[in-house]
Amino acid sequence: MQKERKIFLSESEMPEAWYNIQADLPEPLDPALHPGTLQPIGPQDLAPIFPMELIKQEVSQERWIGIPEEVRDKYLSWRPSPLIRAVELEKALDTPAKIYYKYEGASPVGSHKLNTALAQAYYNKQAGIKRLATETGAGQWGSALSMACSFFGLECMVYMVKVSYQQKPYRRSFMEVFGGSVIPSPSEMTASGRAVLAQHPDSNGSLAIAISEAVEDAAARSDTNYALGSVLNHVLLHQTVIGLEARAQLEKAGDYPDVVVACNGGGSNFGGMAFPFVADRFQGKKVRAVAVEPSACPTLTRGVFAYDFGDLAKLTPIMKMYTLGHEFMPAGIHAGGLRYHGDSPLVSALYHHKHIEARSYNQRECFESAILFARTEGIVPAPESSHAIKGAIDEALAAREEGKSRTILFTLSGNGYLDLAAYDNYLAGKLVDVPCPQSELTEGLQCLPKV
Amino acid sequence: MQKERKIFLSESEMPEAWYNIQADLPEPLDPALHPGTLQPIGPQDLAPIFPMELIKQEVSQERWIGIPEEVRDKYLSWRPSPLIRAVELEKALDTPAKIYYKYEGASPVGSHKLNTALAQAYYNKQAGIKRLATETGAGQWGSALSMACSFFGLECMVYMVKVSYQQKPYRRSFMEVFGGSVIPSPSEMTASGRAVLAQHPDSNGSLAIAISEAVEDAAARSDTNYALGSVLNHVLLHQTVIGLEARAQLEKAGDYPDVVVACNGGGSNFGGMAFPFVADRFQGKKVRAVAVEPSACPTLTRGVFAYDFGDLAKLTPIMKMYTLGHEFMPAGIHAGGLRYHGDSPLVSALYHHKHIEARSYNQRECFESAILFARTEGIVPAPESSHAIKGAIDEALAAREEGKSRTILFTLSGNGYLDLAAYDNYLAGKLVDVPCPQSELTEGLQCLPKV
Repeated sequence: MQKERKIFLSESEMPEAWYNIQADLPEPLDPALHPGTLQPIGPQDLAPIFPMELIKQEVSQERWIGIPEEVRDKYLSWRPSPLIRAVELEKALDTPAKIYYKYEGASPVGSHKLNTALAQAYYNKQAGIKRLATETGAGQWGSALSMACSFFGLECMVYMVKVSYQQKPYRRSFMEVFGGSVIPSPSEMTASGRAVLAQHPDSNGSLAIAISEAVEDAAARSDTNYALGSVLNHVLLHQTVIGLEARAQLEKAGDYPDVVVACNGGGSNFGGMAFPFVADRFQGKKVRAVAVEPSACPTLTRGVFAYDFGDLAKLTPIMKMYTLGHEFMPAGIHAGGLRYHGDSPLVSALYHHKHIEARSYNQRECFESAILFARTEGIVPAPESSHAIKGAIDEALAAREEGKSRTILFTLSGNGYLDLAAYDNYLAGKLVDVPCPQSELTEGLQCLPKV
Repeated sequence: MQKERKIFLSESEMPEAWYNIQADLPEPLDPALHPGTLQPIGPQDLAPIFPMELIKQEVSQERWIGIPEEVRDKYLSWRPSPLIRAVELEKALDTPAKIYYKYEGASPVGSHKLNTALAQAYYNKQAGIKRLATETGAGQWGSALSMACSFFGLECMVYMVKVSYQQKPYRRSFMEVFGGSVIPSPSEMTASGRAVLAQHPDSNGSLAIAISEAVEDAAARSDTNYALGSVLNHVLLHQTVIGLEARAQLEKAGDYPDVVVACNGGGSNFGGMAFPFVADRFQGKKVRAVAVEPSACPTLTRGVFAYDFGDLAKLTPIMKMYTLGHEFMPAGIHAGGLRYHGDSPLVSALYHHKHIEARSYNQRECFESAILFARTEGIVPAPESSHAIKGAIDEALAAREEGKSRTILFTLSGNGYLDLAAYDNYLAGKLVDVPCPQSELTEGLQCLPKV
């Protein structure tokens, strides 16, 4: 019998717990520091903006953390997500490699972000919170949190980076369909926003500014908490459902990856797929994990491993991570979800200790890969995901050159239905590559706190 | 064990043949007539624009027509599509009814249209054709045919109704990602287009005009055929894979529908879901099939059953169908895929002989249903599909009133990711209902040919 192209798990085979890589780290994480005192923070420092369950998850050393029944129930509207063998792409590349992709764009918001949005909305609801404030860049995260809040009966306030707010009206509409309130950031709603506008009335905004606004909003209201779509340990934890499912699906197919590839901005998509395999690696399995980032925002490949703020207004804890400096302003590439100056402390530490690899690409080669993928596999990828596709293709071409097979697994983290304007620009030859000059990187690092 | 919410078929359980309802019709179809002679047409009349295999399917009396291996292979990139029990919607409606939906929006183009696009591209490729010409309204069909042509190495020329071309730039981009050429209709490319522009330089276009342009284009070039996304027998045939899968999936769940609901424009979505169940009805099963259409274009509910042209320039054969007259210009409602003056001859005949039911709704009540569906089930529906949702909800509310359970099956024919501007209008209170005044309907029927 021919092997099936799509490998499904039944609902009862969906993971019952998230995997917490903190339990298995060979090298301990450096603690997060208070932005004022520069001393390690405790749970009470985070309590004004996060519910206690998430704070516990942030520092937990338990290997497995059970997925609450109510969250599992919501996951089941699209999970387990399909694992698909990219047979047409393999043919087009004439490669002996086997390429599998985990399709997180099958989620109702079109990306992996819903995996953590549902968990965060649930724990906040349990804690009696009425309203969540957050930021969004490209809009995937804001969409996911709006939907999750709608499911759990919470209000949702989204500070959307102004340039995306203007360029992607459909994203705003999507959030509003689910009852979310969306305003362009920087806004007049917060002191952080007003401070930026006073200096730069025409500011396009950035994630670092929008985070400041959302954190400030949440800190100011007792009915409101803050929710972050990436970077933090608990966010990556929730995303591990991706890798756990993929591993079980490959096992069904009698396979195991030689290399796992995912795009990397704040780290939640990459961590979600890679961590279960990195755990296998700690146990002696020979599996590589490759994080792919844009050359315009080369946090892992060209940043430094240092303590830095997560936002521009310095409201967040200081974390040890790869960073380009919290004042770094990435160019306006289309992969808005990968335009963040910092990175997840977990991903950063794994990279620093050489448990994972990283690689960067320019946007045009990513779009070229995305078009090849669309025309062979039939799915238009999100610009972020196109970085993973390019990474997977390069692995497949390397296998061809070696004349050896290789099993490649990558995450198609989202679809590009709401990013077609970017494809339009690419096809019209209007896209330019914007690799980052060394001078800008050097300058960006001037703002690092002296810890 | 709890029943699973999503019911999957394995790839090997995908239907191996399409179901041809012509084999089981209690009343024979009236023949299509030549637009010039008004005599029944033969295969040679259609040969300039269709490949012989599709012409044969158009008139076949065989009950089962095998799905070619190459088409099955492409179907497998998303088929069998999921059947989902709408448990959250049921809860919100507090209904004893069970609601299932077949999610055709899971296809890579986001709608059911790919089911026939792949088949048509395949048969044309086999016949040595190099290029297909077609029309598209909202853009779902043009997207599907562009992707199918890309898969089978054909060029694709899409005449897109001008108002949609301007309102939905993402749809155009989508087609171009797959290599399709898209121009706004009416265009200067054809005599039909030029004739309209001469009289109405600012014409917004209509499906009836765009069909004329595409047919003329195909007739003029020996390397080019025409492809239609609905109405014709062979198109509905290809869509029966939807109903066949749904029936098998419900059987897995130990269930069978009391009523099947689908939206209806040209009839391919409705026929694709309903025909296998109508066949059961012919065998004595008690199952109802309800076609739902917009009040702005009430072909079945307020049109007449008569011979009419399929296009404005009278280039197509004359068919016996429910029609509002080929000069009828429907109002600019958002469900662009349901704005067609005529209907499938098969659906029309079944309705005329009372084997199926029909019902019409205004667009605001459909959007209201769509928002409820999104907030409960998490999928933003295409405006066309929102009509089916409204129909299913009314069935569920009737069950509640009766205090009896009822099994309802409907097709979620497409997602609304590229229709968010319509939701924006609805949420901003800008949408108006445009039911059709009787005077317009009466006037529209003046143009019927005297057969």
